[in-house]
Amino acid sequence: MNKIPVGILGATGMVGQRFVQLLEGHPWFEVSQVLASERSAGQPYGAACHWLLPTPMPAAAQGLPVKAISPDTAAKLDCRLLFSALPGKEARPVEENYAQAGYAVCSNASAHRMDADAPLLIPEVNAAHTRLIDVQRRGRGWPGFIVTNANCSTTALAIVLRPLQDAFGLRRLSVVTMQAISGAGYPGVASLDILGNVIPYIDGEEEKVESEPLKLLGKFDQAAIQPADFRISAQCNRVPVLNGHTECLSLEFEQPADPSTVIEALETFSAGEPVAGLPSTPARPVIVRREPDSPQPARDVETQRGMAVLVGRVRPCPLFDIKLVLLGHNTVRGAAGGAIHNAELLLAQGYLES
Amino acid sequence: MNKIPVGILGATGMVGQRFVQLLEGHPWFEVSQVLASERSAGQPYGAACHWLLPTPMPAAAQGLPVKAISPDTAAKLDCRLLFSALPGKEARPVEENYAQAGYAVCSNASAHRMDADAPLLIPEVNAAHTRLIDVQRRGRGWPGFIVTNANCSTTALAIVLRPLQDAFGLRRLSVVTMQAISGAGYPGVASLDILGNVIPYIDGEEEKVESEPLKLLGKFDQAAIQPADFRISAQCNRVPVLNGHTECLSLEFEQPADPSTVIEALETFSAGEPVAGLPSTPARPVIVRREPDSPQPARDVETQRGMAVLVGRVRPCPLFDIKLVLLGHNTVRGAAGGAIHNAELLLAQGYLES
Amino acid sequence: MNKIPVGILGATGMVGQRFVQLLEGHPWFEVSQVLASERSAGQPYGAACHWLLPTPMPAAAQGLPVKAISPDTAAKLDCRLLFSALPGKEARPVEENYAQAGYAVCSNASAHRMDADAPLLIPEVNAAHTRLIDVQRRGRGWPGFIVTNANCSTTALAIVLRPLQDAFGLRRLSVVTMQAISGAGYPGVASLDILGNVIPYIDGEEEKVESEPLKLLGKFDQAAIQPADFRISAQCNRVPVLNGHTECLSLEFEQPADPSTVIEALETFSAGEPVAGLPSTPARPVIVRREPDSPQPARDVETQRGMAVLVGRVRPCPLFDIKLVLLGHNTVRGAAGGAIHNAELLLAQGYLES
Amino acid sequence: MNKIPVGILGATGMVGQRFVQLLEGHPWFEVSQVLASERSAGQPYGAACHWLLPTPMPAAAQGLPVKAISPDTAAKLDCRLLFSALPGKEARPVEENYAQAGYAVCSNASAHRMDADAPLLIPEVNAAHTRLIDVQRRGRGWPGFIVTNANCSTTALAIVLRPLQDAFGLRRLSVVTMQAISGAGYPGVASLDILGNVIPYIDGEEEKVESEPLKLLGKFDQAAIQPADFRISAQCNRVPVLNGHTECLSLEFEQPADPSTVIEALETFSAGEPVAGLPSTPARPVIVRREPDSPQPARDVETQRGMAVLVGRVRPCPLFDIKLVLLGHNTVRGAAGGAIHNAELLLAQGYLES
Repeated sequence: MNKIPVGILGATGMVGQRFVQLLEGHPWFEVSQVLASERSAGQPYGAACHWLLPTPMPAAAQGLPVKAISPDTAAKLDCRLLFSALPGKEARPVEENYAQAGYAVCSNASAHRMDADAPLLIPEVNAAHTRLIDVQRRGRGWPGFIVTNANCSTTALAIVLRPLQDAFGLRRLSVVTMQAISGAGYPGVASLDILGNVIPYIDGEEEKVESEPLKLLGKFDQAAIQPADFRISAQCNRVPVLNGHTECLSLEFEQPADPSTVIEALETFSAGEPVAGLPSTPARPVIVRREPDSPQPARDVETQRGMAVLVGRVRPCPLFDIKLVLLGHNTVRGAAGGAIHNAELLLAQGYLES
Repeated sequence: MNKIPVGILGATGMVGQRFVQLLEGHPWFEVSQVLASERSAGQPYGAACHWLLPTPMPAAAQGLPVKAISPDTAAKLDCRLLFSALPGKEARPVEENYAQAGYAVCSNASAHRMDADAPLLIPEVNAAHTRLIDVQRRGRGWPGFIVTNANCSTTALAIVLRPLQDAFGLRRLSVVTMQAISGAGYPGVASLDILGNVIPYIDGEEEKVESEPLKLLGKFDQAAIQPADFRISAQCNRVPVLNGHTECLSLEFEQPADPSTVIEALETFSAGEPVAGLPSTPARPVIVRREPDSPQPARDVETQRGMAVLVGRVRPCPLFDIKLVLLGHNTVRGAAGGAIHNAELLLAQGYLES
Repeated sequence: MNKIPVGILGATGMVGQRFVQLLEGHPWFEVSQVLASERSAGQPYGAACHWLLPTPMPAAAQGLPVKAISPDTAAKLDCRLLFSALPGKEARPVEENYAQAGYAVCSNASAHRMDADAPLLIPEVNAAHTRLIDVQRRGRGWPGFIVTNANCSTTALAIVLRPLQDAFGLRRLSVVTMQAISGAGYPGVASLDILGNVIPYIDGEEEKVESEPLKLLGKFDQAAIQPADFRISAQCNRVPVLNGHTECLSLEFEQPADPSTVIEALETFSAGEPVAGLPSTPARPVIVRREPDSPQPARDVETQRGMAVLVGRVRPCPLFDIKLVLLGHNTVRGAAGGAIHNAELLLAQGYLES
Repeated sequence: MNKIPVGILGATGMVGQRFVQLLEGHPWFEVSQVLASERSAGQPYGAACHWLLPTPMPAAAQGLPVKAISPDTAAKLDCRLLFSALPGKEARPVEENYAQAGYAVCSNASAHRMDADAPLLIPEVNAAHTRLIDVQRRGRGWPGFIVTNANCSTTALAIVLRPLQDAFGLRRLSVVTMQAISGAGYPGVASLDILGNVIPYIDGEEEKVESEPLKLLGKFDQAAIQPADFRISAQCNRVPVLNGHTECLSLEFEQPADPSTVIEALETFSAGEPVAGLPSTPARPVIVRREPDSPQPARDVETQRGMAVLVGRVRPCPLFDIKLVLLGHNTVRGAAGGAIHNAELLLAQGYLES
């Protein structure tokens, strides 16, 4: 079949580069448009972009001319699907502009995540939330629409919470993160701030981790999401790691749970159709490690091309029920890969047809 | 006054070197004996020791002959006070051997920490626990005795818990640590294991952090310590930081508490006499930072020569009452500096008189 | 065709693991034997080995029983080809033992590299040196033989020197290396020694870099190698990089050379038959980068699966003729990958037939 | 005596902070003015400055009001001596502006270093070059003047070259640097660019290292500096080190030299009067280490408060005469400390009198 042309908003940044990388050889999509600020416009992508990834820039992307993001360009792209890697502040008006002009926008930005009519989507977690798209289009009168993926720390967390919520009911959870520098974009974290250091603060991150999972695990009911009813406390830290957010969890459930039943729930978790058939869906969304010192970002982050979440050290908690450690790839599963995964779901559900 | 001669057991290792460094220019003590394994015995300290610290090896230490740790040496040292920097497994018999031979042993090892008759001591936290020394001597029939300091993560934690326990009563607390590589000694953590990585496991550490604070904050009652009555859940991680353990806490109290009252309790916390007058007692045991992103190990760990504990980000917790971050110097306050501080207290209380 | 079974001596170490990783899916070879010290013998490889690589341990290797390296085992393996990842000191007697017992040994160890009758081999550099094998067998009376690959720093260097020697004649060269921690094996470099540090010394390394290239670029003449006639000065440093040795070169030639002719010589360098057809031969042995700040280990080391050497910053030298920077993968091209490449050449040249 | 008030141009940046730190408790100078861009003007220094150093911001500096650098301010400061920590591009007009207004400017910027009438000064190396100040004042008609210190890599290099030039005569030298991230200022090097990486390029650095030493070791002759007559080839790399530039040298001399005579020349090197009596002059400008693996930035950079240059691994070179490694503190000796040292010399020589 012919591949579907797609565009990338903010294509030269850290997450934009991940889109370009992950879409190379994608079975359904191919990058036809790269968009960035005025400053880069007109240059070939290969010249405009300070490539940061350890695999070479895809040959097909190198010659693509960078187009400026502007109201003018909104109506003139040769694609209907856009991935947004824009920073939070710029994203809101730009994405709305493109949705209004008829584009399907799969956004990694935080701008619209908590809008009542915008799906906050992880295919294995809440595929049914795409039904909000119709609510959004009706309400806003747009021919296009905006779908968002979750914050990088939230994404890995929500994938682990989904089967636990289903099996045991969540009551309370504490999460302390140790997040990779790639999550802050480029140039992002100054080396003078992080070499041999821990920064116990990431602006706005704890608020996202404490709120997004409730929407993600909520239920679509009529025209709105009823958020899940549990409580989260988050503490977010930056550590000198390249890729991979590690999270230490302590969980309290409604129903009795012990390490073996929790492991069983995590290991038997799998996506139903159509999610299971999507190109980016990993063989198993959650992989449980038994070694005492796993998972580790430098060793495990690329597992299943960065789309699996790893869990380790499942053990009883003296305060709540269970403690565990999880690891997710922040710029793949938690950013570009998640947005592509969402677009695959939209295609499978028919939302990308004209 | 003449300085009191002291010896160091395990003087060539990471913590042993900190003892040598911190005792340089100490107003009360001076190193007269350095003891290590047979392998190093006979060499001058300067040759036997692969010095790891960024300040030069004290000139006075360089020429000290290393003596072997052995039953024979136990009776022949020209000092009465010994600091033990021995690894956990070796420490038990060696320290008992020396205490039996009449030495006062201030040990950084974990071996005797939880023994019912061994003080686990932090001067600002539980100076009255030294009364266990008499219980120990009577029970064991030793002319000498053993006093221990707490685990490196526990030490910083307990110093922060002391004023909070007094002001609000502790009910439950969750702590997630991000610990420096110097805590594992030398050679310790392989660079292939930690460069750009997080290891979500430190053998035996969580058990110590979950139990030692209860003894530290317990009450001396007749001839024993009644442990404090609250619960701790710990998750311990190794991060690529040189010195300084960072800990993310979530705390539940008996009494109402909010960020301002917690900060007040921490900032007004001070040691009474005789602790306040000891050479190693910091001007304030706990320093509260107001910047949103403090404390940080690479920036703050040397505050007050590594003897202060820094606290930051005091804020409400959606699950418990208060969240905060603390930072302590693991090889100074949490190891060699803590043991020296204990010895100072023993001297002030008269336990080092013959 | 059926794959040729191979064994790995020292299979559980850093380089041993690279052999296992790189041989997964190899078109000609498959691992049938993993050998290590007595301590690991009897366990399955998956249990005996502390896996250090970021890709999962190959499933086929996990269940292989580890055999002890010992004179007894020398005659009983179901393979004829052995890769040696043994440390320098142990390698000499063990490898000789196996060669005497009839095995072809492709060794990464330094033990036999400079032996007059042992090929020191890099296929693109000196494929004709395999003729030393006959000299070795005749001289030593062995049914098997030993072939070595060069030191990790030397390998990348020699691949760049080959075309420059051919085009311009080498007279003198200065090389300063910045070497990755993986080159020291596991546990290897202590994190306390290298985090945020440079160690300006690697034991024995400068001697190897100053001597091995002369043998590699020498000529096989009758029954011996006539070493090349130029001079090398090496200075070797360890830096906190995971994989990839960076080397700064300054070169003096017999013939006139300028950046453009040097780049041309490097870019047109290619291996003739049969080397060009080997599975591990990269499309181009040397890749020249034009960006001002390339190559970089964290970005470029995996280029062409780690088998290409990257060159950048080719520019005039105020002292000699040309300065440039090169980068090679130390545990792939400079170790396990190089030894496999050598075995492929041996197979193509008929040396692995019985 | 009353201390001399001084101002700092560019006080909030990385080098500006070093000035503030190093001037705390200085016996001759005290900071009375901190100047920065319009953006910071009006705020107290403590609020305007994102403090990056591991020692606390001096209390006296916290409340100093930041003044804007502008033509207006040039005539109104309550000090006559200014230290300039301005970035290269901004420095030229600003420093000239202040010199014209009567200030003595000790600049760390590169702008005027190679001007024929501007001293490029290191007290132990070329104290006599201050005589250029009179040439400068006459030629430019300024009541004030500009004196510069050398590039951070050059400074440590020149201090080592001075006694070697005097003893043996320099003919040619090759230098490869491994430079710390603090040399690039703040935010400077992005962590995504340097974590676990080497960047084999620093913009403009090699040109400085190849030219500045010739002026530094030149002779003041009538009204100009006759540059020294030897040749340098430099290759400059950035490595993940916080402070301390390591440099690998290979040296060719006019006169015979061997490791022992070179070590003797380095160890007997000392500054004459008045340099020896300056507060910042180290007890010995060059310290030679005998351990095989010294010096190392993480261990040795603070030697003699960062003002000494360390040398190690002095050994024969197969190409030239001698190879060695040196280490200098880039933001102390190679930047702020060097400029303060120069100001001390100016005071001792009478150049700061009105």
